Amino acid sequence: MFRILVLHGPNLNLLGERETNVYGAVTLEEINKQLTEQAEELGASVEFFQSNHEGELIDKIHQARDRFDAIIINPGALTHYSYALRDALSAVSLLVIEVHLSNIYAREEWRHRSVIAPVVQGQISGFGPLSYSLALTAACELLKEGAKQR
Amino acid sequence: MFRILVLHGPNLNLLGERETNVYGAVTLEEINKQLTEQAEELGASVEFFQSNHEGELIDKIHQARDRFDAIIINPGALTHYSYALRDALSAVSLLVIEVHLSNIYAREEWRHRSVIAPVVQGQISGFGPLSYSLALTAACELLKEGAKQR
Amino acid sequence: MFRILVLHGPNLNLLGERETNVYGAVTLEEINKQLTEQAEELGASVEFFQSNHEGELIDKIHQARDRFDAIIINPGALTHYSYALRDALSAVSLLVIEVHLSNIYAREEWRHRSVIAPVVQGQISGFGPLSYSLALTAACELLKEGAKQR
Amino acid sequence: MFRILVLHGPNLNLLGERETNVYGAVTLEEINKQLTEQAEELGASVEFFQSNHEGELIDKIHQARDRFDAIIINPGALTHYSYALRDALSAVSLLVIEVHLSNIYAREEWRHRSVIAPVVQGQISGFGPLSYSLALTAACELLKEGAKQR
Amino acid sequence: MFRILVLHGPNLNLLGERETNVYGAVTLEEINKQLTEQAEELGASVEFFQSNHEGELIDKIHQARDRFDAIIINPGALTHYSYALRDALSAVSLLVIEVHLSNIYAREEWRHRSVIAPVVQGQISGFGPLSYSLALTAACELLKEGAKQR
Amino acid sequence: MFRILVLHGPNLNLLGERETNVYGAVTLEEINKQLTEQAEELGASVEFFQSNHEGELIDKIHQARDRFDAIIINPGALTHYSYALRDALSAVSLLVIEVHLSNIYAREEWRHRSVIAPVVQGQISGFGPLSYSLALTAACELLKEGAKQR
Amino acid sequence: MFRILVLHGPNLNLLGERETNVYGAVTLEEINKQLTEQAEELGASVEFFQSNHEGELIDKIHQARDRFDAIIINPGALTHYSYALRDALSAVSLLVIEVHLSNIYAREEWRHRSVIAPVVQGQISGFGPLSYSLALTAACELLKEGAKQR
Amino acid sequence: MFRILVLHGPNLNLLGERETNVYGAVTLEEINKQLTEQAEELGASVEFFQSNHEGELIDKIHQARDRFDAIIINPGALTHYSYALRDALSAVSLLVIEVHLSNIYAREEWRHRSVIAPVVQGQISGFGPLSYSLALTAACELLKEGAKQR
Amino acid sequence: MFRILVLHGPNLNLLGERETNVYGAVTLEEINKQLTEQAEELGASVEFFQSNHEGELIDKIHQARDRFDAIIINPGALTHYSYALRDALSAVSLLVIEVHLSNIYAREEWRHRSVIAPVVQGQISGFGPLSYSLALTAACELLKEGAKQR
Amino acid sequence: MFRILVLHGPNLNLLGERETNVYGAVTLEEINKQLTEQAEELGASVEFFQSNHEGELIDKIHQARDRFDAIIINPGALTHYSYALRDALSAVSLLVIEVHLSNIYAREEWRHRSVIAPVVQGQISGFGPLSYSLALTAACELLKEGAKQR
Amino acid sequence: MFRILVLHGPNLNLLGERETNVYGAVTLEEINKQLTEQAEELGASVEFFQSNHEGELIDKIHQARDRFDAIIINPGALTHYSYALRDALSAVSLLVIEVHLSNIYAREEWRHRSVIAPVVQGQISGFGPLSYSLALTAACELLKEGAKQR
Amino acid sequence: MFRILVLHGPNLNLLGERETNVYGAVTLEEINKQLTEQAEELGASVEFFQSNHEGELIDKIHQARDRFDAIIINPGALTHYSYALRDALSAVSLLVIEVHLSNIYAREEWRHRSVIAPVVQGQISGFGPLSYSLALTAACELLKEGAKQR
Repeated sequence: MFRILVLHGPNLNLLGERETNVYGAVTLEEINKQLTEQAEELGASVEFFQSNHEGELIDKIHQARDRFDAIIINPGALTHYSYALRDALSAVSLLVIEVHLSNIYAREEWRHRSVIAPVVQGQISGFGPLSYSLALTAACELLKEGAKQR
Repeated sequence: MFRILVLHGPNLNLLGERETNVYGAVTLEEINKQLTEQAEELGASVEFFQSNHEGELIDKIHQARDRFDAIIINPGALTHYSYALRDALSAVSLLVIEVHLSNIYAREEWRHRSVIAPVVQGQISGFGPLSYSLALTAACELLKEGAKQR
Repeated sequence: MFRILVLHGPNLNLLGERETNVYGAVTLEEINKQLTEQAEELGASVEFFQSNHEGELIDKIHQARDRFDAIIINPGALTHYSYALRDALSAVSLLVIEVHLSNIYAREEWRHRSVIAPVVQGQISGFGPLSYSLALTAACELLKEGAKQR
Repeated sequence: MFRILVLHGPNLNLLGERETNVYGAVTLEEINKQLTEQAEELGASVEFFQSNHEGELIDKIHQARDRFDAIIINPGALTHYSYALRDALSAVSLLVIEVHLSNIYAREEWRHRSVIAPVVQGQISGFGPLSYSLALTAACELLKEGAKQR
Repeated sequence: MFRILVLHGPNLNLLGERETNVYGAVTLEEINKQLTEQAEELGASVEFFQSNHEGELIDKIHQARDRFDAIIINPGALTHYSYALRDALSAVSLLVIEVHLSNIYAREEWRHRSVIAPVVQGQISGFGPLSYSLALTAACELLKEGAKQR
Repeated sequence: MFRILVLHGPNLNLLGERETNVYGAVTLEEINKQLTEQAEELGASVEFFQSNHEGELIDKIHQARDRFDAIIINPGALTHYSYALRDALSAVSLLVIEVHLSNIYAREEWRHRSVIAPVVQGQISGFGPLSYSLALTAACELLKEGAKQR
Repeated sequence: MFRILVLHGPNLNLLGERETNVYGAVTLEEINKQLTEQAEELGASVEFFQSNHEGELIDKIHQARDRFDAIIINPGALTHYSYALRDALSAVSLLVIEVHLSNIYAREEWRHRSVIAPVVQGQISGFGPLSYSLALTAACELLKEGAKQR
Repeated sequence: MFRILVLHGPNLNLLGERETNVYGAVTLEEINKQLTEQAEELGASVEFFQSNHEGELIDKIHQARDRFDAIIINPGALTHYSYALRDALSAVSLLVIEVHLSNIYAREEWRHRSVIAPVVQGQISGFGPLSYSLALTAACELLKEGAKQR
Repeated sequence: MFRILVLHGPNLNLLGERETNVYGAVTLEEINKQLTEQAEELGASVEFFQSNHEGELIDKIHQARDRFDAIIINPGALTHYSYALRDALSAVSLLVIEVHLSNIYAREEWRHRSVIAPVVQGQISGFGPLSYSLALTAACELLKEGAKQR
Repeated sequence: MFRILVLHGPNLNLLGERETNVYGAVTLEEINKQLTEQAEELGASVEFFQSNHEGELIDKIHQARDRFDAIIINPGALTHYSYALRDALSAVSLLVIEVHLSNIYAREEWRHRSVIAPVVQGQISGFGPLSYSLALTAACELLKEGAKQR
Repeated sequence: MFRILVLHGPNLNLLGERETNVYGAVTLEEINKQLTEQAEELGASVEFFQSNHEGELIDKIHQARDRFDAIIINPGALTHYSYALRDALSAVSLLVIEVHLSNIYAREEWRHRSVIAPVVQGQISGFGPLSYSLALTAACELLKEGAKQR
Repeated sequence: MFRILVLHGPNLNLLGERETNVYGAVTLEEINKQLTEQAEELGASVEFFQSNHEGELIDKIHQARDRFDAIIINPGALTHYSYALRDALSAVSLLVIEVHLSNIYAREEWRHRSVIAPVVQGQISGFGPLSYSLALTAACELLKEGAKQR
């Protein structure tokens, strides 16, 4: 049974409340609920953590080393400058998948560059809550294949 | 029943034969076979087209307008400079999903920029053949939700 | 009666103690006191929060949504890279005014670019403690005009 | 009697069908018809060729050397990267005029640069189908003046 | 009967006298005369104004608002830096066409960028005096079509 | 009694008439009237000058040296390239405040850079006519404090 | 006996006819004839293919995998942007040598960068038809040394 | 007796466990122990603080003002973007020395630039745990010389 | 007897009054007087013109064509952006020498680039009023040698 | 009988001893010996000079003017910044060929740009010692053809 | 007993005489003397060489291969452009440490980039003569640990 | 009696022989002779030194400290990259004047930037041998005025 940690970065706690034209009307709670159900079907367990603090996300990633098999992370705006988050992800030897609700390549120029992407297994961007769901499917598939993160 | 066109760009015909350390050992035929089976389960039909010619890919995209509901495209190296391909994809009003076998953001600098990404629904990068499979799942989900391309 | 939140970013707690040639000799406490008096005259209430933690500032902004009509923020050095702070400000539908004590355009090159400025109503830079005072006047005027943030 | 070749690049076959807010509702066929009539009045003959294939356009340009006096070309998105097309145009000693339906300087940043422009006589951009018509007038005038390509 | 203002920017008064290898031997007076005749045939009236002063050109554009239907402008070297001229043109709701005698894209690097182009209807570059004539034809055609400036 | 010169740069004479979605519906005359009243209350006198000519603005700044205590300037589009205006402002030893009606950092990329800002006391941007009013308050406050320009 | 494929890219079919001041008066046919003779002397066989189509060149490279020991390629203007051609060359495990008739580093800025060069054994530029001849000598030498491509 | 604060930035708590090929096998605890011993010999006292939170590091630096004579800091990945950390270090009037375990100039491009370096006394990079030890020696020497921070 | 026009650009009328630490205490009048005397000795005549208006300087340059043999110009801040001034200078076939009082290469970055320099005979920068004097000597020498402008 | 000077730049004296994985195991002496033999066969004479001093290489180039017909030069790392070497080569009217042992375009970014290349006849890069041999062949061929350097 | 070569680059012979505000009042001789004493204590021998000639420094580095165990180098201004020096250092298999008297990251922009740093073990910058002393300590420590250069 | 050292950089020994279209037909010897005569008239002595070696020029500059009052230097191509030369010039407290025969701003892009200019008194560029003569006049004038180098 695979153990998967789902990390939500800054401002994602407002999901479903803010800028719904960009991020949709589904709340973070609903996404988490849906992922829990999907995980059950896939024979996996998921745990969730949201924080607006870069430091707390890094702490959580460190603690995940022995307790989880994979991390699914939506780093929010930290995607674009948090080299500390990048170093944390690259330091733990877990499968990591980066997700984004919106298509970051169809938005402002500065959202096109992810400093996280070079150290993850893969990136899924632009499918709304479905981005998370695809990531969960991918994580389970890759763990099954015994595929470890790069 | 959703009709989905899967387009493979330049050099993807060599899959499984060339640079297997980067692209893996699965052949394009095997990927297509696997997608056909997955499509059947999802109640969708898939058709495949591979070409090393930018022009043929554009022609195919034009023809897809009335015959397909969605396009899954791995543009190969055209990803990085073919504005003509981009204009073709943005001209047809279909759901388009961009996929890459390797994590293009963990490779050479010039592979980090996709001129295609700004006009697609979403992008999936770095999961090997699984990238296509996730895209197929996403396409069917989004078509079900009646989600039209941007 | 308008409710206005005044946010002071990293290192502003040292005001009046550090680099007084650049930032002046007035302390943060004195600025807050002066703003409280000015607010009273303008028929508004002000609340203050200083933090050296990006995450705490974001949390505070989220909580401000229902409790305040406007935010006056001096983001300190976060001005120049905190896209997470920017997203937080752009997520809450409040009037936001950005202030700086020193003229950031007359200092080091990297201080010339604010990643916050594109999502605020306006920016006031270079007037010392007066920058805050002008912002408070502006906030009340704009709230009176019913001018909502862009 | 001047012989003029009109070349339409990638995606122009979709004219009148795709993105009519940008490119207008007139079809390529209608443009060609209108140019044929205008040519007749001007005592010139026109021939048309549309292709989504860079190579076919280059072949056509080569063949034009002995058969035509001038080329009017709308290179579509090839405008922005096809140095091969540029070399082809600069290799044949014909009068060449570059046209664009939309004002390429009022659109995305990457459409502002034409790699074709430095080797043509002149460029006409932003007048819709009228762009072609003005180019035809210009071609006949310049040929009359015996004005050879730069 | 359409009223069209033709504006000639800095140094164009020297036309026919200076650098005739680049700009040709025709004088500004001759161009104006030729345009007056062409206008008559097209049922339009033209008025001319040349100045080496950015401010005078802006004043003239402002005054044109109620007195003209369209502006044809060759901004000379102001093309490349006069944001004030750009704002003036974008402020008046007239059809504006930008013309250049020489092909600015075949000259020095700095002549390739027009700060004016993004706010005009279209641009015609490289046809010598014919550039103006084509612009006049275009203006009348577009006014007839009731085409208003972008 | 402080004497303050208010300078309005190119195109500001069209205020209230052009692009009211960006600049608002208030005319320059109304702004000037409002500032005159505010000045009276503050025990200051204001004089106004608008010009579309860079040279006239520079002349005016030179003349201001002995006749005024402070300059409030909205340089319009000259903000972004007029180093001559900058040198003029930095040559006279007066308090200078730069104002903008719109938030220049929320508009086109080229409007983000002010060549004027490094030589002024402070900048106020984005509050509509209120920008001028805040500047007037600031000027009087700073003059009172005996704060001389940088 | 070494089998060597010589590929000529876009516009090289015009050799000896176009821009002879840059490319010389020798035709492609003459170059091929000369290379055939040289190959005979060196105990090698050569085959030639010219195309203005990127896709055809890629197809040819793919087919060369089992049929040739080395590729000599003059990619013409594709040198500067065809990442698809690059990927094709890097995918087949053959010795590849890049040649240019003219010294590409003594021409326009954009001709200085070859996207092909990083994946070939070596590059020979600037010797006219002799470039090909040197490449053939090099190919045979390296094959003899058993030197495989990088 | 000099009092020296040693600050370890994000991810340094994992030292000796993560990426030992880059950072070595020594743990943070061992480094601290070794520095304590060395300090004793040098007649100095050292205190240690590690945090993954930018804000906590800034708080600590502020508190150090009266309690320490010098700061030795390895800012981890914050080195490359935390202008808030930089402002904190430049605000307190202490001797500051920046250390890095690995040679940051021999790694990824983005690690070559330190936003911290311009405000410290000196930088020591690339000697593993020895970097800290050299910094401690330097701190004591400079304090002895009465050398105050720049 | 050579006739030489000396042009002083924006803000130079303030010479000797403003920023004397940069530009020295000599007034423009004194410089002109000194040049008149030097000219007399050299058997030349000089005429002076100062303006803060780009347009007036251009007009003056045009008028100089038949009346002068050489132009000595200190373009002030127009040096750095006035392509219109550049075109004016390059249009008249006179010897042109560019002078600067201060060493523009030892000041702000943006003062390092002169858009005027590429079209003049030579540039003299950094010698205070002596810069003009050297230019006058040079002009007479070059005119004597019959050296015409590039 | 052609006289050819072969120049080896900095660090090439270490050939065969240093970094043999990049530069191969052949020594400079062996290369020189091999070239002497090849020259004999071609009816040419060769002379060699190696130096780690830019100045000595320039001196040697100057002296070569009357004593040699061609120069073959491997400038080592001077390739990338020695404009003085470039000026020396362009000053003497000899045939010059630039060679590199390794493929400089497949190495670090800064090795991709040669400041020498624009002033030589041609460049040969990536063939190990064979690069020199090909250059010698080319030199003799071109001298025979009477081809003088550009 | 470790043998260490200390190299001083261009202009360091002036130490103690020139710009003492930047480089301090200690002479090179004094630094060398101090290092000799320190070496003795550490059981190492040091040898010194200063040159203003890039070539001489490279020659010295080559000769050091068999005679020394480590090199401590202050490359002076060659730090910023001498790729030849870099190649020399990377060619010899010795431990190399780069030192700078001043903090190069707190000075002019162009001094921030060292082309030497990527090929050395570590860099010490900003401690005045102490920089050398720390480097000597480091060299001995690393040689003891048997740490060979990267 | 002022003592002035005239330094000629790399390749200037070829003056009058090489590229006379750019540098003129006068030899270095003739320039030196002419300067000697001019110096005599001005009551100064001149000494000359030409070298193709950066190091020798630096040595010479160091030696000049006590023996000369001013340096006139034409650094040749070292102008554009020799930071070591720049440091040497800025280290000696002499008046330094930079001269160039050709107008470096009217030539290749890379010749527009002088790394020497920021540390000299002034620069004279584009007057052929006259550049030196003007520099000599300037040196004597400035020395007379007791004007010491910046």
